[in-house]
Formats: sequence, structure tokens, C-alpha cells
Amino acid sequence: MIERNPMNEEIIYDEESLIESLEQDDIIHFRELFLQLHPYDRATLYKKVEPELRKKMYFYLSPKELAEIFELSEIDDNDYKIFLEEMDATYAAEMFANMFVDNAVDVLNELDKSQVVSYLTLMDKESATEIKALLHYEEFTAGSIMTTEYVVIPQDSTVRSAMTILRNAAPEAETIYYVFVVDDDERLTGVVSLRDLIIAHEDTFIHSIMNERVVSVLVSEDQEEVARTIKDYNFLAVPVVDFQQHMLGIITVDDIIDVLDEEASDDYSKLAAVADMTTFDKNSFSAAKKRLPWLLILLVLGMLTANLIGAFEETIAQVALLAAFIPLIAGTAGNSGTQALAVAVRGIATRDIEDESKFKLLLREAGTGLLTGLICAIFVVGLIYVWKQEFLLGLLVGAAILVSIFVATISGSFIPLFMHKMKVDPAVASGPFITTLNDLISTLIYLGLATAFISNL
Amino acid sequence: MIERNPMNEEIIYDEESLIESLEQDDIIHFRELFLQLHPYDRATLYKKVEPELRKKMYFYLSPKELAEIFELSEIDDNDYKIFLEEMDATYAAEMFANMFVDNAVDVLNELDKSQVVSYLTLMDKESATEIKALLHYEEFTAGSIMTTEYVVIPQDSTVRSAMTILRNAAPEAETIYYVFVVDDDERLTGVVSLRDLIIAHEDTFIHSIMNERVVSVLVSEDQEEVARTIKDYNFLAVPVVDFQQHMLGIITVDDIIDVLDEEASDDYSKLAAVADMTTFDKNSFSAAKKRLPWLLILLVLGMLTANLIGAFEETIAQVALLAAFIPLIAGTAGNSGTQALAVAVRGIATRDIEDESKFKLLLREAGTGLLTGLICAIFVVGLIYVWKQEFLLGLLVGAAILVSIFVATISGSFIPLFMHKMKVDPAVASGPFITTLNDLISTLIYLGLATAFISNL
Repeated sequence: MIERNPMNEEIIYDEESLIESLEQDDIIHFRELFLQLHPYDRATLYKKVEPELRKKMYFYLSPKELAEIFELSEIDDNDYKIFLEEMDATYAAEMFANMFVDNAVDVLNELDKSQVVSYLTLMDKESATEIKALLHYEEFTAGSIMTTEYVVIPQDSTVRSAMTILRNAAPEAETIYYVFVVDDDERLTGVVSLRDLIIAHEDTFIHSIMNERVVSVLVSEDQEEVARTIKDYNFLAVPVVDFQQHMLGIITVDDIIDVLDEEASDDYSKLAAVADMTTFDKNSFSAAKKRLPWLLILLVLGMLTANLIGAFEETIAQVALLAAFIPLIAGTAGNSGTQALAVAVRGIATRDIEDESKFKLLLREAGTGLLTGLICAIFVVGLIYVWKQEFLLGLLVGAAILVSIFVATISGSFIPLFMHKMKVDPAVASGPFITTLNDLISTLIYLGLATAFISNL
Repeated sequence: MIERNPMNEEIIYDEESLIESLEQDDIIHFRELFLQLHPYDRATLYKKVEPELRKKMYFYLSPKELAEIFELSEIDDNDYKIFLEEMDATYAAEMFANMFVDNAVDVLNELDKSQVVSYLTLMDKESATEIKALLHYEEFTAGSIMTTEYVVIPQDSTVRSAMTILRNAAPEAETIYYVFVVDDDERLTGVVSLRDLIIAHEDTFIHSIMNERVVSVLVSEDQEEVARTIKDYNFLAVPVVDFQQHMLGIITVDDIIDVLDEEASDDYSKLAAVADMTTFDKNSFSAAKKRLPWLLILLVLGMLTANLIGAFEETIAQVALLAAFIPLIAGTAGNSGTQALAVAVRGIATRDIEDESKFKLLLREAGTGLLTGLICAIFVVGLIYVWKQEFLLGLLVGAAILVSIFVATISGSFIPLFMHKMKVDPAVASGPFITTLNDLISTLIYLGLATAFISNL
């Protein structure tokens, strides 16, 4: 019996024997061991072995068996191309035909157009038609992640006939735990869970037990919205419809977990100013490529601040100690701006922000900014007095910190809200803008005040 | 028919009529409208109305009906206490008894011990025993999020008898889509999906169709590990066992989505240095309370840098322009440190990092740091030359940036890995440490070099 052993984080399966059987061309032993594994563990091994061994696998496993590995989200986008190149094109096409349509489309979307066309031509006609129907949906919409392998029943069926339909559909359908009820025009009118079906009497009519208040999503809806709907309502699947309520597909909970995970990685990588963190880097060059764009942009923006400080060269030449607090003030403004930004971005992502008016939100952020600014200012005046016995310098730094935190907090929440309204992803561009804006404003206030009171310092 | 209208983000239900029927004490009309709604929409209304109206609801709805609302993760932890105080204690106790055990435990864990005890005493004995059994599991472990409402069958049953057991268990069980098979000692030996059951012939023995390679998790395992297991394997539920493989409970996919979401919010809020972002703030004071601790800690740490710069007062007094680049250098070090930190923290969270050796990872990060540092340094030397026609000053800034990025990148990935190894949450403390460390090192290098070459500037 195989099982994850949680104590040492290892999957206990006989990896060595598996690789050995591959190396010795012992096809029977290999298949016996390999097909016992869960597809996730098969994928782990498949990704791990050397290309020559993987090429043997394509002869030892049917396209259908390999399809189970490719169904998983475990394979990186970059790896798809490498693996597919190792395979015979006809074999690959047959593998795609054996995948659930939504997953096949996910992989195909990562490939070049010409490659996709050649696979589609090599495929049986039925699968090719199904895949083509989904390929044209825009990325990140409900249509792009839905599958067409679901079970529908006419609303005048009985439980008995519904169960027969289900039994026949079971091997193909992605989920059989929800059965969708349609009218004569194929419009969605209800949903029945398998739980309800097995409890009900066999002669009961479906329309008498179905739930008519079915929650559906539009095919054009954003995938993150769909994910939130499934999360909020605790669904295992949600039906996808067009504007006329015709049923087009379903989206299942496992796909939604991947969407939520990607979304979280995405917001996180933007806050950290890394181009893309959804795939983990295998070498320094690809990692550097993802980090450099932001570092360079931030450097150019940072030169603006340097330029501004340069303009106060004379003031600093008179009281050099002033320079010591520039990073402190800019840093604090940056920190409070990031806090406000993160709260706003996360609030938009989890839809918490939609529940209330934007004006109230900004008012509250202004209050938060004033409150935190005031406390930090008092704190810093005290710190500087204790450290340097300088009261006026402390007051200067304190005043700069108060104003900077106030401005940083308001801009940190206003800019992402504004971008969200403009249909721009708020996480994308607001980070560096806000930081630069805050740096500029806070140093301007600080050095401006310092220049005005220079005679007193 | 109700349905989410994705175009305007609104739930179309007749909120006004609902509130009106409450105000007019029209219990029949209220119940008719209210019970048609999905529990998620009921919860939305329940949270929204005034306390007096909510108090009416406790008379109009049975504890069981209210339980459906409390099952959802939609109610904030802080709100539980308020709502429970509005209710009669016996009513509340009966409501808990009617919830799925895992969800009841979730809510009870947020309350005071004495309050929990009083609810348990008022409850029927069976429910109280079930809840008590789960209450003692440590927070954030598999035990604390599992439910004991699952279906088990003996391994010598037939499909027919299994279906009978399932039908009887269906109204109570949290999921009936997996049925767990146990031996005479209640040890988990296999799993059968409802899909397999309805396809199989009625006289088939369970042990001949069950999957013996069942993936289970230990009751003491961390909930994030469980979440990753369910995500990787695309499960709808996973069984929880003790060291002797006795079945103790199951964890379902809907609970896991909440765990992944919390985890993401948690990492995100730590990167942004906000104490807790899992609940959205309703007023400035609670928001300020969450942001101030980090702001103040960072201020104190920032004083270290200010102190260090202060030590170079004389150098700056001679060449005041030097001060202009301090925020640029410290900022760039901070940015690259945050990037490396975020990649490491996210890699640990998604388990991507476990696949490879830590040494290789650090080597790669060193390479990334050198690469990005070098490119940024060359870039900045050019920028400063174009802007100020200063070559030596540019070289100074460039050298400081190269070393700072290199150190920041290595510490940004080493510190979280080290903390993870020490079983401390890497996201928690590494952020401000890394930033301060980088600030100190980068300014030390910069001003140190400047002092050494001051005669040439």
C-alpha cells in the first residue's frame, strides 16, 4: 500500500526499481509498478528521469496512460514543449485526444499555433472538434478553463433514467456528482446532485427534486470571479452559460484551486516586484531575467529622488547630519504605502472591498494614515532626542514622517482602487509608482523644511 | 430563478421584500423568501441587517436553519462573538449541534473556554462528545480541520450493501462521494468513489473494486501540507489517520480552499509588513493597530542606519552630493532582497523548493545576485555619467550597488530557508531583518568607499 508519509515528506514508492526496470527494458515490471502509482506520483517520476528513459516511456505507455500525467497542473509551461518534442506527433495528438478537453486546451494554449494545428489534424475528428470549440475562448475567462465533459438530463426524466444516463457518462465526464437539467432548448433550468439522486425514489421526476435556483457563470466572466464564486458557495462545480442561459460547459473545483493559487502567486510576485513567480526558476539566468526589469525601472525612478536630494546639496553641506535621516523617512513612507497598497490589492482580490463604498474606504484610510503618522512622529521625536539630544532636528524628521505616512497611506489605497476601476490590474504598476511618489514627497517635505529652518539647526 | 449576474456583480434577490417582511413580522413570507436563497446569500443578508432584525431571525429560523449560515467561512471571527451574544444560549448550543462537526469546532475555537463549556453542557450528549473529540486537536493541524462525519464500510461488503449504507448516511455525511473501506480493526484499507460504486454491478465485493493505494494524512500533520496534498492529487477529500492507520476523520476540498486562501493572505500580509490581513478592517483604529507594530519596529531598525550614516557626517559635509544616492542604494538593496525573499517564501509554501538541494539553490541565488548586481551597476554608472558627468562618483555608487545586490540576494534567500529549517515561519521575521541588514551593509560599503576615495571626488 502506498501512502504519503507526512513525517519525512517523502512519497514511499520504489523509485529505484522503476528506473531500473526502464533501464533494463523490462516493460512488464515497469508497467506493473508505474500504473499502481497515483498520476501525481507518475508525473513526479516522469519529470525527473533522463530524456532517454522518458523516450522509452512513450513506447511502454499508451497515449491514454500518458494523458493522465499531462492532466495535472504539475508540469511547468516551459517543460511541455520539451516533453512534446520528445514524442512522435501522432502519439502526442492521440494523447491530447485522451485528455479532458479543458486540460488539453490548457496545454495547447502554451504552444505555437502551427504546432496546435498539426496536432489537431492528426487527431480523431470528434476530439479535434471539441478542442477547437474551446480554443477560441479568451485566456483567463470562464470559457478558457471550462470543460465540455459534463452530464445533462432533460427535465422530464425520472431518477431511474437519470441514473442510467449517469452510469453511461461516468467514464467520460469530469464530474458526475452534479447533473445539470436542461429544457428542450438546451437552456439550463436546474441542478441535481448525485447525493439527491441516490436518496430519491427511482420513479420520482427530476423536476420535482431538482434545485431551480442554480448559480451559473457567464462564459465571458473572469476566471478569478468564477473561482471566488465556487469558493464562496462551496461548490464542487459550476455550470457555464451564454447570455441566453444555454449550457456550454462546467468548471470544477480542482481547476479553481489552481486559479486561486496562481492568483495568489501573481499578487505576491507583483508586491515583491518579480516579473513572474508562477514557475520556479531552474537557473540563475531565468531568475535574473524575471527580476532585472523591475530593478532597472526602480533604479531609474530612484534617480528622480537622487536628483531631488541633489537640489538640496547646499542645505546638506551646511548640516550633514540631515542626510542621516533621509533613508529613514523615505523607508517609513515606503513601508506605510506598501501596507495600504497590500490591504487594497488583497481586498480587491478577495472581493472584500466591493461590499462598501469607495469614499468610506478612503476616509478610513485617511484616518489610519493620520493615526499611524502621528504615533510614528511622536515616537521618532523621542528617539532622536534620546539619541542626539536634538529637539528641532527631531521635530523636523517627525513632521516629515507624519506628512509622508499620511500621503503614502492615502495614495497606497487610492491608486490601486483607481486602477481597478480603470480595469488595469492594480497590483501591476502601482507598487513602484507609489514608492517613488512617496520617496519624492517625503524627501521634498523633509529637505524643504530643513532649508527653511536651517538657521535654527 | 436566482443567479449571480456576472455583469454587474450583484446577486439578484429581493432584499427589500425580505427586510420588509422581517420588519412587519410576516414570518411566513420571510421564511418563504429566505429559505429559497443559497446559504451564502443568506449569510450575506444575515450579516447586513440591524441587530433587532437579526434577533427576530432567531425566532423565525430553527437552530438547524441558522446552522447552515454559520457553516460558511464568510463570517469574520470577530463577528461570531457579537452574533452569539444576541442569541439565547440554548438556541446557540442547538445550532452548534446541527453544524458539521469541523465547522462547529472552527467557531468554538474562537470563543472563550467558559463559553464553550456552557454551550457543550446545553447540547445533546452525542453532539457534545463529537465536538469535544475534535476540540483538543492543536490549531493548524489536520485534526483541527477534519470532520468525523464520513462514510465507512467494511471491506467484505457488496456494492449493494455499500449503497444502502451510503443512502442512510447521505443526509448527515459531509461528503458521500468517497467511501472509505476499513478492516475489522477500523484500519483504513481502501477507498471507493461513488462513481465506481454506481458503475459496478450490485453483487460485486467492495474489496475487488476498491483502490488500495489510498493517500492519507496523519492527524498531526500541518494543515498547509494537507492542502498541498489535496491540491496536487486533485482530491475531493482525504482521510485522516493515526500512526496505526486507524481512520479518524476526513478533510474536504472546500475546507482546503479556505486554508490555501488564508495561507496566501498570510504570506502576503507579512511581505507587506501588516500584522494580519485575513479579516478586512472596518475602522481606522483596528487598521492602525495592525500596521503600527511593524512601522515602529522598522523605525527603530531604521535608526541603526541613520546612526551609521551619522558616523560619516564628516565625509558627507565635504561632498554633500554623496547623500543624494543613499536612498537609491539602500532602496535597490531592499528591492533585490525582497525579490529573493519572496521567491524563497513562495517556493517553501508551494513546496517547489523541497525538490532540490538547498546548496544548489543558494548557489543559484548567488549567481542571480551577481548577474543582476553587475547589470544594475553598469546601468547606474552610465546613468550618473549622463546626468552629472561624474565618472568616479558613478563608479562608487555602482560598486556599492553591485555588492549590496549580491549580499541582499543571498541573505534574502538564505535567511528564510534557515528559518524554515528552524521551524520558524520564514515570512514572519525575515522581512525587516533583511531590509535593515541590507540598508546597513549597503550604506557602509558606499560611505566607506567614499571616505577612502574622498580626495578624488
